[in-house]
Amino acid sequence: MTNVDVHTHLYPPSLVELLRSRTEVPYVRSFDAAEGERLIILPSEDASTSTSRGRPFGPDYYDVSRKMSFMKVHGIDISVLSLANPWLDWVAAEYAAETAKMVNDDFETLCASQPGKLYAFATLPLSGTVEEIVAEIARLKTLKYCRGVVMGTSGVGQGLDDLKLEKIWAALEKEEMMLFLHPHYGLPSEVFGPRNAEYGHVLALAMGFPMETTIAVTRMLLSGVFDRFPKLKCLLAHSGGTLPFLAGRIESCIAHDAHLKKEGKLEHRRELWDILRTNIYLDAVIYSELGLNAALDASGADRIMFGTDHPFFPPLEEDEHDREWPSVTSNLAAMINTFGEDEAGGIDLMGGNALRVLGIECIQSKE
Amino acid sequence: MTNVDVHTHLYPPSLVELLRSRTEVPYVRSFDAAEGERLIILPSEDASTSTSRGRPFGPDYYDVSRKMSFMKVHGIDISVLSLANPWLDWVAAEYAAETAKMVNDDFETLCASQPGKLYAFATLPLSGTVEEIVAEIARLKTLKYCRGVVMGTSGVGQGLDDLKLEKIWAALEKEEMMLFLHPHYGLPSEVFGPRNAEYGHVLALAMGFPMETTIAVTRMLLSGVFDRFPKLKCLLAHSGGTLPFLAGRIESCIAHDAHLKKEGKLEHRRELWDILRTNIYLDAVIYSELGLNAALDASGADRIMFGTDHPFFPPLEEDEHDREWPSVTSNLAAMINTFGEDEAGGIDLMGGNALRVLGIECIQSKE
Repeated sequence: MTNVDVHTHLYPPSLVELLRSRTEVPYVRSFDAAEGERLIILPSEDASTSTSRGRPFGPDYYDVSRKMSFMKVHGIDISVLSLANPWLDWVAAEYAAETAKMVNDDFETLCASQPGKLYAFATLPLSGTVEEIVAEIARLKTLKYCRGVVMGTSGVGQGLDDLKLEKIWAALEKEEMMLFLHPHYGLPSEVFGPRNAEYGHVLALAMGFPMETTIAVTRMLLSGVFDRFPKLKCLLAHSGGTLPFLAGRIESCIAHDAHLKKEGKLEHRRELWDILRTNIYLDAVIYSELGLNAALDASGADRIMFGTDHPFFPPLEEDEHDREWPSVTSNLAAMINTFGEDEAGGIDLMGGNALRVLGIECIQSKE
Repeated sequence: MTNVDVHTHLYPPSLVELLRSRTEVPYVRSFDAAEGERLIILPSEDASTSTSRGRPFGPDYYDVSRKMSFMKVHGIDISVLSLANPWLDWVAAEYAAETAKMVNDDFETLCASQPGKLYAFATLPLSGTVEEIVAEIARLKTLKYCRGVVMGTSGVGQGLDDLKLEKIWAALEKEEMMLFLHPHYGLPSEVFGPRNAEYGHVLALAMGFPMETTIAVTRMLLSGVFDRFPKLKCLLAHSGGTLPFLAGRIESCIAHDAHLKKEGKLEHRRELWDILRTNIYLDAVIYSELGLNAALDASGADRIMFGTDHPFFPPLEEDEHDREWPSVTSNLAAMINTFGEDEAGGIDLMGGNALRVLGIECIQSKE
């Protein structure tokens, strides 16, 4: 039994240096020596004059030895690393291609330093030209440890139903490369009401991120991406946001929409249920047995993959960081309650599916 | 076996007359005699100069005989009517109390015209004073067919975590009156991206409404409403929006929030899972077996109630309006697939739970 974590983030060293050298969002800065470094991603976070703006940015975010310890504590054999937000949409267009190449080569070096234990989803030069993005996808195919690409829901700026992305979908489909779709900017804070700040980050993290993912994938569906690219493979973060639960409502709203009917868009379309079992894979980062079972119902036990979202959601007590993380064990408990300790389904979810779908087994056996 | 529809809307005649007499949003108007009347709810809908602004507003929206035919076609014995949006937050404060009284008395007359077949969730004078709202709640208790109140997610304007609502929660709890929570304004359209209009109403209806509900209830949870009013009963529209699927993530985000911990808010709090099985009831308007099963897992088979959302989501072909509606049969099919045709669980969901929870059986036996 090989345990694989498909949802685990790392900021590679070269990118951390770049973020430290910047004076505009996004950047990394220490405002108060006692507090350590902070990562500021959004302009709204930067407006505050507080020294605690942004989020703490410690070694768990960039030090590969911290990742290896975390894997050991949780019995994870293989991690498929991905950059967390911000992805590279903020890079000036002229530096887009070289920055993505720098980040992806850095990931490759990190993976090579722990052979067979680390793989990576690469990052695309989203602020560059479509040609540069497509060229990077072709180059990624030559990297030994690259197993797909991670992308935020804004795509090249206008969301994933933007026709500018067509050549990118075509390239990913042609190279049979997994697209790991991850929420990026959440929802605008006004949707959470005037008391939002009293609730810490709960509303933005618990609701904004999954809703953003659900909207993004539904826009892909409605714009026909999966009709035009029927072999595009997408791994959705956080068990699809809320897509499994809302799939029935989405299908019903489509089937009852007079405008779509008038435009002839209800004919020959692929239903979401079909796409959930053909194009979509889901991670198992949903923190409940109920959620896991809904994900299983939506996409099937051969398409769900264990993940942790490390280094996010650490234990609140600093001295518990080196022990098992409840944010991880809650997902493990859901799997064990669903499948039992050693059942085949559980083995597939814990790693079997990832090895097969991401083609990791073959590489391992060569080493 | 008695089939009860707990989610079914009607605009009572006096309110329709009021909406027809108005020249500002919300209002009812015929812009084009051939097209019939339209209901314009939001300022953004009114900005258009098109004659097709707002939504069609026909007899299904206000004619009780159309409701009775719909019930007959679908084998529904009892409907618990509620006003749909806009609720009464738009009424000038000085007319708030009398408008709510007019609407609620109108509902009472409608219900009395079909004894034992119609009941109602009343509407509160939300633009009035808290005292007026509380007084109306006390008065509603004297109405024979009133079985609770319907409320949109904005409450008296600032959402359901607004402390101005405390006396209202206290009154509803004291009178043991069900609060039917329903989405109202959706999410701002910019969250659906620049191509939103190409997809008809799909994104706003399929995602905006359930997400609005989920955010609203989570704000109630985080502000401690269910801690302070442990007997408050809420029926959530559309199976809770996305609450069952996201409950695990919400609980995990709360448990990992440093700000909430610092404020001492992680101690002695009631978990969402407990509230889902104590305070919350869910309708079964989720259009899939997967969704229904998640709702059952969240709140239990004794707390889920059949609903239709009539007159919304009619068949697209006008000549099919008098037959069975697929938007209804998809929810029925989910129940039959889950429970079989005549199983006890299915009977509870189809009506048994509503009769018991809303106290309808007792009244019926008197007649």
